[in-house]
Amino acid sequence: QIEGPHITMCRFCYSNDFDLAAIYVSDAQYNRNIYFDTSPQAVRLYLLYNHWVLKVLLYFFILVDLSLALFEEPAVVPLPSWVTMLVELLCLLVFTLRLIHYAKVIPRDKFWKDPKNICIIVILLLTLVDMIIYGALKAANCYGVRWSRVLRPLLLVNVTEGRQLRRAFRSIRNALPQIFYVFLLFMFSVLMFSLMALKLLGKRGLTTIEGAPYFTSYLEIVFDLYVLVTTANSPDVMMPAYNASFVFAIFFILYILINTYIFMSVFLAVVYNNYKKYLKEEVRQLVRAKRHKMVRAFAVLQEQKEEGGEPVVSQASWNQVVHLVQPDISNAHRELLWSVCDDKNQGAIGKVAFVQLADLLNIEVITIKSRPHPLNSLCPAFYQSAPSRLLCRMVQHRAFVIVYDLIILVNAVFIGLDEENPMIANSEWVFLALYMLEILLKLYVFEPRAFFSRHSFWNWTPCDVSLLSDLASLTIRTMFPVRFRTIINTLIRIGPAILTFGQLIIVVYYIFAMVGMELFKNKVKFYEDTSDPAKAYCGNPLLKGTAFAQLNYCKNNFNNVVSSFILLVELTVVNQCSGFATVTHMSARIFFVIFHIMVVIVIINIFVAFVLEAFFVEYSVDKSDLQTSLEKKIEELELAVAQYVTDNLVNAMETIDNDLGTSQSAAANVPSLMFKIASKRYRTVDALLQRMFEADLDPEDFAEHDDPEAQGNGNFANPTFSSA
Amino acid sequence: QIEGPHITMCRFCYSNDFDLAAIYVSDAQYNRNIYFDTSPQAVRLYLLYNHWVLKVLLYFFILVDLSLALFEEPAVVPLPSWVTMLVELLCLLVFTLRLIHYAKVIPRDKFWKDPKNICIIVILLLTLVDMIIYGALKAANCYGVRWSRVLRPLLLVNVTEGRQLRRAFRSIRNALPQIFYVFLLFMFSVLMFSLMALKLLGKRGLTTIEGAPYFTSYLEIVFDLYVLVTTANSPDVMMPAYNASFVFAIFFILYILINTYIFMSVFLAVVYNNYKKYLKEEVRQLVRAKRHKMVRAFAVLQEQKEEGGEPVVSQASWNQVVHLVQPDISNAHRELLWSVCDDKNQGAIGKVAFVQLADLLNIEVITIKSRPHPLNSLCPAFYQSAPSRLLCRMVQHRAFVIVYDLIILVNAVFIGLDEENPMIANSEWVFLALYMLEILLKLYVFEPRAFFSRHSFWNWTPCDVSLLSDLASLTIRTMFPVRFRTIINTLIRIGPAILTFGQLIIVVYYIFAMVGMELFKNKVKFYEDTSDPAKAYCGNPLLKGTAFAQLNYCKNNFNNVVSSFILLVELTVVNQCSGFATVTHMSARIFFVIFHIMVVIVIINIFVAFVLEAFFVEYSVDKSDLQTSLEKKIEELELAVAQYVTDNLVNAMETIDNDLGTSQSAAANVPSLMFKIASKRYRTVDALLQRMFEADLDPEDFAEHDDPEAQGNGNFANPTFSSA
Repeated sequence: QIEGPHITMCRFCYSNDFDLAAIYVSDAQYNRNIYFDTSPQAVRLYLLYNHWVLKVLLYFFILVDLSLALFEEPAVVPLPSWVTMLVELLCLLVFTLRLIHYAKVIPRDKFWKDPKNICIIVILLLTLVDMIIYGALKAANCYGVRWSRVLRPLLLVNVTEGRQLRRAFRSIRNALPQIFYVFLLFMFSVLMFSLMALKLLGKRGLTTIEGAPYFTSYLEIVFDLYVLVTTANSPDVMMPAYNASFVFAIFFILYILINTYIFMSVFLAVVYNNYKKYLKEEVRQLVRAKRHKMVRAFAVLQEQKEEGGEPVVSQASWNQVVHLVQPDISNAHRELLWSVCDDKNQGAIGKVAFVQLADLLNIEVITIKSRPHPLNSLCPAFYQSAPSRLLCRMVQHRAFVIVYDLIILVNAVFIGLDEENPMIANSEWVFLALYMLEILLKLYVFEPRAFFSRHSFWNWTPCDVSLLSDLASLTIRTMFPVRFRTIINTLIRIGPAILTFGQLIIVVYYIFAMVGMELFKNKVKFYEDTSDPAKAYCGNPLLKGTAFAQLNYCKNNFNNVVSSFILLVELTVVNQCSGFATVTHMSARIFFVIFHIMVVIVIINIFVAFVLEAFFVEYSVDKSDLQTSLEKKIEELELAVAQYVTDNLVNAMETIDNDLGTSQSAAANVPSLMFKIASKRYRTVDALLQRMFEADLDPEDFAEHDDPEAQGNGNFANPTFSSA
Repeated sequence: QIEGPHITMCRFCYSNDFDLAAIYVSDAQYNRNIYFDTSPQAVRLYLLYNHWVLKVLLYFFILVDLSLALFEEPAVVPLPSWVTMLVELLCLLVFTLRLIHYAKVIPRDKFWKDPKNICIIVILLLTLVDMIIYGALKAANCYGVRWSRVLRPLLLVNVTEGRQLRRAFRSIRNALPQIFYVFLLFMFSVLMFSLMALKLLGKRGLTTIEGAPYFTSYLEIVFDLYVLVTTANSPDVMMPAYNASFVFAIFFILYILINTYIFMSVFLAVVYNNYKKYLKEEVRQLVRAKRHKMVRAFAVLQEQKEEGGEPVVSQASWNQVVHLVQPDISNAHRELLWSVCDDKNQGAIGKVAFVQLADLLNIEVITIKSRPHPLNSLCPAFYQSAPSRLLCRMVQHRAFVIVYDLIILVNAVFIGLDEENPMIANSEWVFLALYMLEILLKLYVFEPRAFFSRHSFWNWTPCDVSLLSDLASLTIRTMFPVRFRTIINTLIRIGPAILTFGQLIIVVYYIFAMVGMELFKNKVKFYEDTSDPAKAYCGNPLLKGTAFAQLNYCKNNFNNVVSSFILLVELTVVNQCSGFATVTHMSARIFFVIFHIMVVIVIINIFVAFVLEAFFVEYSVDKSDLQTSLEKKIEELELAVAQYVTDNLVNAMETIDNDLGTSQSAAANVPSLMFKIASKRYRTVDALLQRMFEADLDPEDFAEHDDPEAQGNGNFANPTFSSA
């Protein structure tokens, strides 16, 4: 473990302290938790390890490795197995090299203590073993199963960059015990209802539509009622009993109330509660680790300004570090950040101010060079004339936006209408003209450079009259009203996190797809050729006359990885699997039940929990303290961009109306440089998470003492199962 | 408005102050908010108004009024229309009398200001008008519609006792603006996806299974995609496109991700957030009103003990009031409550202590007279002998419970198995014997009276070997482990609130059933007679060959109120309505879409929000302060019941093992009376709600100043729409 004093001792070993400090700051900014060796060559290797090219390469090879499923049996595009195996070997080589690189960066003992490294090594070895066995079997013309393909998505979880994904898995694992208790109760309820159903309906000699006996086998009933919870077989499962007497409907209504509505809500409640609890703890550890890193960076840079005074960091060192961390930062932006940190203008900052840096760098600030409208400089008399000013006011007015919203809406309706009609076809040109007019008007009113830089998306979309851009433009404009803002902001904010959930889903889907392909491949076939008689029963005589074949679900099969994925999506929405139980064995249902439990009960609920939490944060918190202080500073320095396309517009205009003289002079005094916080976006998911639980974190907690739990093995220790 | 000084002045007008105080306390206990006249005869009328017989009568007649739908055309049991109309007239009469009674109780101006009274009057008048019109039309042999039947369930909302229901409706109304914005965005997204679907798929000449053109009409697409959100037509709606190319599946997957998962979560988030916000405000007002009433009761009873001292209530007056409020309270229980209030044993209590009374009365306390085991008195030498003590310890041991759990589980499995087998049939007797043994053993170990009173349900169920009692017993035992306790407690606690949601659902279902019956009655027919050829197409040629008829959904119709209700439940689970659009007109779909929006998007989400909130309260709060203080007092007085069927058992037993002598003497000293808080149940839904938001309420806030909003018109003012 690297201790503070050790760093201080090592201060003099490096040619450049700033490199080390910059690494600490950068690690803090992106929440990297790699406890690299501090020897000079290890630091150089670490810088290389974090280089984006290597990361992209790694993810590219993971992608290649995962997409090998497209070319392996059962394949979408069949390739000889030696080709896929050669490519896989290459991928394995890349992963091994990356791992060796990582081993060189961090201390030896840390490397072997980290479970994710062990995981990768095991995955690599197992894959190699599997490839050898498979190759041998192939050579001997035996049937072989590439079982190690199930392990491939686990690489996505265990690479150093899979932090978000690991966190998501941890939060699932932590919620599992509680989910398990509810699941027991739920299954108990299902079993009891099944028993009741058997007693109530089993001996009445009812039949299903297919003429099979209805509710006579206990296990069949259990399965049918389980599927009823997913609402997939509602109301079919109830119809025979309901046709016999409406009294039986009460049984099913009661069942749906208890198991579909109450238990599913309880699952959500339990998942949500656990998710929140553990995530809070993880984020707390994350923030502690971040502060710890910033304190280390501070220790490297600190100077003693006065005898006996607090150690500080001078502006010069600060500038150099910021430049190293973010080479593309503009000088103006850096000056702004410094003035936020050095609030009292002392030329040096203490520890508290320095620690903010990582978060400050995460706030996106847009720098705009503002200048007067070129027409105003060229021909002020004309541009300042009454009709010109009226035009400006009209274009700046909210009604202008609304009118164009309506135009786009009408355009959308026209696109939806019959295109054969020549009038409608010609209307496209009218709309094009209207959009061009809008852009010209806006160019007249707003300074062109500012117009292009800030509202690029906003203003440029309408000029492309293609369908999609219209939609996008309309979408953005519809989203505009203030009332929608909270909802939209949250939706935008949820965006990056959905990527994590996307990876999570891919990991789970991939595993289920691999297993499903082994179990069900070519059991159900899809025929492109409509004349083939086998099409009517999906190429499997067992399906003759079943609803599966009648509804033409033949393409819902496990015959290749693409259709497997699409089928799994369908199963997530509505768990329909009767066909596969028919063509194989009743026990195939177990596969589908496990999938439902994993994906719908656990993952979808965690996703819903995340969306709920994100919304409540948006509703309750408005801005982080740091963001506010940055904004305040920008306003203090009178560098704020006037937000003319916002609600303030009307107010601003009223001010202009009331007091034209002053506003004119104010306009003349406008500084040449302006800032605007792109407040509603977060660079990293971590920043969003941190904000979620910000209220509970003590800003003065510097984590000076290494938190043994948080920093035990280069990764966060997983919270233990404490709910048992 | 009745002011504090007014009450003090009036002190001397009544023959009995205690009656008035008791009414205030009782109103506070049950959260009644009726601002009755304080004149003596009005108070007597008010007591009568609150009498349970009148309330039961009122609900009985509401039930009769609602169930008239069973006998009116289209009827389950047809009755001549003069009979149903006569009964309805009787119901109207009862409601009118009840309303007149209410008008006599409260001041005239309050009566006319209260919207719920106006509502009832309007409903009664409209019903009368409708009956006259319908009677006239019938007499003239014309077709008449009993449109006023839609208004019937509104009575349930507007009677004085419908407080919970009104609150639920208010919370829905308050959430509506926010829901509306999300709904706009959601519909916009659906419309845009539909447009894309039209452009992508409309011109490819694809056909559905029925051979109809696929995705060619914009409105059809919008409807299909809306239904896809409910997952009802997944994957059918996607299959034609997916069969054409798997690329189109991506479109549908994207659609489901955005509209089913994200937007539905957003609906839940918005509903939940609004629900929480407004409920908090309502409960705050409720608590203020309750305290206000208690302060009034205090003002009536107060005495000046010392010159210049704080006014107090003596124990004698307190006893008399408690006796009036709850005549069946035991003296011991009353003494206990007094000792909680009069913490310092001063013989009189101040305002703060008095105000607690309403909440204290709501905590259910079980009084148990404890005595030594009769065998111990009869034959101590035998009962105290080593084998007897060993037996007692065995029966008290946790393993004993587990063993009997296993026995019941085995019994349940046996019941589920084939009954023809004689061995299994005979096994019933073995189980019966085992259950009898259990009861005998418990009777030997525990004092019989305590055994019967406390564990009645627990211990008695197994002795009845019928199926249902087995299930109940097993259910209770399975719920027993500590781990499940939180979940079970919450589920039990949710119980009474579900009744409110049940009423809410009934109101909405009834209205939709009445409208649906007018629109769709006899369009789809169910034939009991299997030989009838019309059965194959539900008696409507339009349904020939449709999936609706093929799946034998004929009994899902609007032909009477019972099948309408069952159909509406099915629509709540999965919105399947293709059949009804086929037999009437495409616009019939509007009915189903509105139903889906009302029930699934709004009401089900509010229900889920309630369950979530109840869970989080259970997870975060453990016990209310008052309950804890009552428990503390019980323990202080050493009157607590030893909980031998809990976890403490093992610890308690270890103590006995270590120190037998003391525990024996302690057992001898056991008081003859014991208390136990039935902590996990709440008498009223209000108490649960209050507990939910207890943390935010200031216990010292007595609402001395009338809150104009809270007490404006005898009912709570509805929070205004402030989110716009």
